[in-house]
Amino acid sequence: MTSTALRDDAPVESARRQRTRTRLLDAAFDVFAEQGVKAASVETIAEAAGFTRGAFYSNFSSKEELFFALMEREKTMRLEQLDAGVEQFLRPLVGAGGVELDDDDVIRTITRILELQSDDRRWWLVQSEFLLLALRDPAISADFLRYQDGFFQELTETVVAALASARRRFTIDPEEAVRVIAELCANGEARALLARDERKFSERLSQSVPAILLALTERI
Amino acid sequence: MTSTALRDDAPVESARRQRTRTRLLDAAFDVFAEQGVKAASVETIAEAAGFTRGAFYSNFSSKEELFFALMEREKTMRLEQLDAGVEQFLRPLVGAGGVELDDDDVIRTITRILELQSDDRRWWLVQSEFLLLALRDPAISADFLRYQDGFFQELTETVVAALASARRRFTIDPEEAVRVIAELCANGEARALLARDERKFSERLSQSVPAILLALTERI
Repeated sequence: MTSTALRDDAPVESARRQRTRTRLLDAAFDVFAEQGVKAASVETIAEAAGFTRGAFYSNFSSKEELFFALMEREKTMRLEQLDAGVEQFLRPLVGAGGVELDDDDVIRTITRILELQSDDRRWWLVQSEFLLLALRDPAISADFLRYQDGFFQELTETVVAALASARRRFTIDPEEAVRVIAELCANGEARALLARDERKFSERLSQSVPAILLALTERI
Repeated sequence: MTSTALRDDAPVESARRQRTRTRLLDAAFDVFAEQGVKAASVETIAEAAGFTRGAFYSNFSSKEELFFALMEREKTMRLEQLDAGVEQFLRPLVGAGGVELDDDDVIRTITRILELQSDDRRWWLVQSEFLLLALRDPAISADFLRYQDGFFQELTETVVAALASARRRFTIDPEEAVRVIAELCANGEARALLARDERKFSERLSQSVPAILLALTERI
């Protein structure tokens, strides 16, 4: 094997490895949503992805490690969707200088931004199950807390910047406000699941999220 | 057996039955908190209460039915603790006519009322697990939703009346506001469990609950 072959092989190997990880993560999401996080076995996940148990373990040391990778992926996707929504629906209204919006504009803009978000129901369910596993298992609780704190920190930065561009700011601690609004969304998902409410995320939350965001913010 | 004996027997039987149910509920709470709601078996619960499986089934048709009875008991206790707190700490400040409180009074009063509440951590954990079972099991999801809606309706009535006596009212839908504040408390419990934060419920929430209550209300 020449050194050229070695240099060429590395990216191929890396791309293939990436595809394997992606297929394992996709399959795991389905299996978690279908069977529950606790009940899902490494064997079932590997099989659903079309791989062996060995292929699973050459990518992830445990089901929990895979779950954290899945959370990172979903977090990144959702924050990107939020950035895209802000760029697409808020930016044109407020321009570069920052323009005050009236309450109707706020409601319309938030609804459109929410419409861009992937429907959260399955994700909310498996994440809640993983949280409960983390609450009972000290081996993963610290990592779960770190993930969650990191997520809310990034989310708060985005929301605070978007509000500022529309000349608003929170009247309580911003991260606390963002957590409360996120919990409102999560709670809405739970109620929708219990009540077999088939309406979309954005439709169910188009009243309550803007209302609480307005109640917890003021004009600068 | 005379008719007098019959009349006397009924309350004795009923009181004994009540004691059996109470012991089963107490034991179940411990077993649920220790082992998790899903893992806990009827056998384990009956044994922990000092009864046979037969005694369990002469009181509850299933683990789920017992769980609903446990939720009713905890709900009643917590709403009574809240009423007692309002009576003890808010009533003397506002009198019968209704007096405006300044923000410091609001914070102090809420903290004292929270201090009266039973520490929620174990209860929050088992209730969250039961919610997740209900989300996956259509046989109990409707009952769970009915229980939860009833709870928030009663809680909202109490909170709205307490606010009115202090000449405040919510600026958003009252039940939504109460749900958001309850979720803030539940979220605080989860974080405390993950972070092994041993501070009491009232201590951890003495900043955030009054802050959000003030942010979501206005003076009448």
